[in-house]
Amino acid sequence: MQQYDVIVIGGGPGGLAAAYPLAQAGKKVLVVERDLWGGTCPNYGCDPKKMLYSAVQAKSYAARMTSAGLNGIPDINWPKLMAFKRAYTRTVPNGTRSGVTGAGMIAVDGEARFIDERTIAVGQDQYEGQDIIIATGVQPVLPNIRGQELIKTSRDFLDMDQLPQRVAFIGAGYVSMELANIAAEAGAEVHVIMHGDRALRAFPEDAVTALQKAMKNAHIHFHENIELTSVEQVTHGLRLAAKGFTLDVQQVFAAMGRRPDDQLHLNRAHIKTNAHGIVVNEFLQTSAPHVYAIGDVVDKKAPKLTPVAGFEGRYVAEHLLGAKASIRYPAIPTTVYGTLEISKVGLSPAEVAGDARYIVKTENTTHWYTYNRTQESFASVTVVEERATKLIVGAIVVSSSAESLVNLLTLAINTKTPADQVLKMIFAYPSEASDLDYLV
Amino acid sequence: MQQYDVIVIGGGPGGLAAAYPLAQAGKKVLVVERDLWGGTCPNYGCDPKKMLYSAVQAKSYAARMTSAGLNGIPDINWPKLMAFKRAYTRTVPNGTRSGVTGAGMIAVDGEARFIDERTIAVGQDQYEGQDIIIATGVQPVLPNIRGQELIKTSRDFLDMDQLPQRVAFIGAGYVSMELANIAAEAGAEVHVIMHGDRALRAFPEDAVTALQKAMKNAHIHFHENIELTSVEQVTHGLRLAAKGFTLDVQQVFAAMGRRPDDQLHLNRAHIKTNAHGIVVNEFLQTSAPHVYAIGDVVDKKAPKLTPVAGFEGRYVAEHLLGAKASIRYPAIPTTVYGTLEISKVGLSPAEVAGDARYIVKTENTTHWYTYNRTQESFASVTVVEERATKLIVGAIVVSSSAESLVNLLTLAINTKTPADQVLKMIFAYPSEASDLDYLV
Repeated sequence: MQQYDVIVIGGGPGGLAAAYPLAQAGKKVLVVERDLWGGTCPNYGCDPKKMLYSAVQAKSYAARMTSAGLNGIPDINWPKLMAFKRAYTRTVPNGTRSGVTGAGMIAVDGEARFIDERTIAVGQDQYEGQDIIIATGVQPVLPNIRGQELIKTSRDFLDMDQLPQRVAFIGAGYVSMELANIAAEAGAEVHVIMHGDRALRAFPEDAVTALQKAMKNAHIHFHENIELTSVEQVTHGLRLAAKGFTLDVQQVFAAMGRRPDDQLHLNRAHIKTNAHGIVVNEFLQTSAPHVYAIGDVVDKKAPKLTPVAGFEGRYVAEHLLGAKASIRYPAIPTTVYGTLEISKVGLSPAEVAGDARYIVKTENTTHWYTYNRTQESFASVTVVEERATKLIVGAIVVSSSAESLVNLLTLAINTKTPADQVLKMIFAYPSEASDLDYLV
Repeated sequence: MQQYDVIVIGGGPGGLAAAYPLAQAGKKVLVVERDLWGGTCPNYGCDPKKMLYSAVQAKSYAARMTSAGLNGIPDINWPKLMAFKRAYTRTVPNGTRSGVTGAGMIAVDGEARFIDERTIAVGQDQYEGQDIIIATGVQPVLPNIRGQELIKTSRDFLDMDQLPQRVAFIGAGYVSMELANIAAEAGAEVHVIMHGDRALRAFPEDAVTALQKAMKNAHIHFHENIELTSVEQVTHGLRLAAKGFTLDVQQVFAAMGRRPDDQLHLNRAHIKTNAHGIVVNEFLQTSAPHVYAIGDVVDKKAPKLTPVAGFEGRYVAEHLLGAKASIRYPAIPTTVYGTLEISKVGLSPAEVAGDARYIVKTENTTHWYTYNRTQESFASVTVVEERATKLIVGAIVVSSSAESLVNLLTLAINTKTPADQVLKMIFAYPSEASDLDYLV
């Protein structure tokens, strides 16, 4: 049996963020990957999604500016767009694997399963690790209905050779909203099948309402309170059915959230889990003390995002190299890259509602210089301040470019900068950031 | 003679930033404006320039994305673009003037001239002020050559009913580079007439070279080392001439810099000036202690930008209301909104060259995730760190969207955040800000 200082299960952003500093510190590190090296994000997650979003973003900006001096809206050519994405993703698995071995680590391809809390097996081989880090991520959930095998996932969407004419997304979380926008802008008729009547539950209702309005204006159809019962093959595609509801489309994509799968045989290592993932303590240790878990596989309050997995990976590496502190997450922004971008960070207005310790400044900012300049259909900015300290502790931005302003406000929150100082700072003028002085 | 606590000469961003807080504090304030209320920036400066830039920006993004899934490049319709700009600028003068009078200030239209250091005249009327603030800005410089009266300025460019087919810009500063880009993208044949061989002297040479390369690819013609001798009317437009050089175009715009004009009769108040403007001390007092000067009219190291004028205006108001501190400028970003954006803030690599106290990290970032995603023709990021403290003290960004990253780095500099913390922070992913971890 081969022995290692650290075994990392999962060659994605979390696992590799742990593996590299450990290897650089001289540890003997093994990394196991059962699928594509690099993991979900760069292969079939946030990175390729945003490659596709680029053309959509450029098209949308041009479309908005037809009211302001531009003639003609470009079209999206799906095969060309896919070629652009593939030029990016094509090199990820080999590049990532070479990086791992080039850094002196051992890369093993295959499905890992626990034998005990110090030992894993991959195929016929067993490996023992002084410490083991689980970074296996999550898998898409499929609806438990007849015809489930006909349903595709975001991974399939992000690698389609051709765009179907009519598509449906099951679910109204951020993956569904983002892919619906891409499909609609690329020319498909798009249907979003909602189990309830509320999309993007993790985001404020007024922001989501604005987004859905923009999506409806882009001819995206929302079907609320649909309890799907079946998907079946019909002559020209697939038929979705629920009580009193049928819809014929060419492709159906489930975007109902993601959950850890159960291939690891965690029970053999006595690792506790619940419906949200692996249970960890403040050092990211599982119930088996030499087994750590990081990234989306973990049950945690922090958002399940690539950079958070990276943050956790670096944390565990430092911990294994002797650092004693428990993990402390900074304020972390979460962004929906949809027909509008909604981005939030820190405390939300809902979390501080009725709490006199906080001041919430919220404004429809569609009339702000920059949002008028770029002809936003809707924009808003919300800043949550702590009354006693005047620090910014939370923010929500809605616009076609919410990302950049939320990044600025994230830095403001994490550096504990008073609101007054941020809102009055001299930024590039005129810009979204300089517009913030409208909030003073 | 009417008496006021404070007379503000110039109803632009600087003057009004001083006037409002003084009026709110109960001071009796008079504001004099000889031209358009609101001043240069919102009427015929940075604000309308960036309105025109919007359509150009949208078109450029679409054009870049034709290599990545987009078909078709929109055209710019100049009259529509101008209508968009005018919808913005149209309301500025009246809106600004109403704001002034609505806040209880007296607004006077006309050219102010000093009678003595406490008294000004406007037309037949005289006004005495306990304190006087000069915020009159600067005026475009025209070349001192035969046919000068045929040469137009950026103000004219920003309000043309039709775009001429062939235009020339005299000068290679930021105004020239920005307007050349707009004109070229809108379909004009564009010539930039340079006195020397170096454009944008205030910006690093490699960044400027990249910008000029992008401009040349956009068919903008640079004519170096041209000592113009005349402009004359010819059959189909204007002829520019220098030794061994002639160029026929339809319009010529001087963009050779801006200087204070001499209408104020400053000598009567014993106010010292030099070639760069009015001389002030660290309280923005002129050589006449009750006369202050703010904004572009001042000879200063700080960049002559709208938000700096606003900062100085607020400073003088606070000073007049009793604050004792001398003015301290934060790090201030300066951005060229051209075919590429070049944005700089804080200490530059040139300023710290050979100085062991600083570390300069500079990288061609064209391959970074986001710059690849948006198909930048060229991008670079430079960060200047102080070695002892690890603080970021300067930055330069070149890309089609340099503004947003420089705003982030400006906040980092002004909040004295260590480089390591900024570059590793969890930002919206993937974004320009999250890409910064490539620099770690």
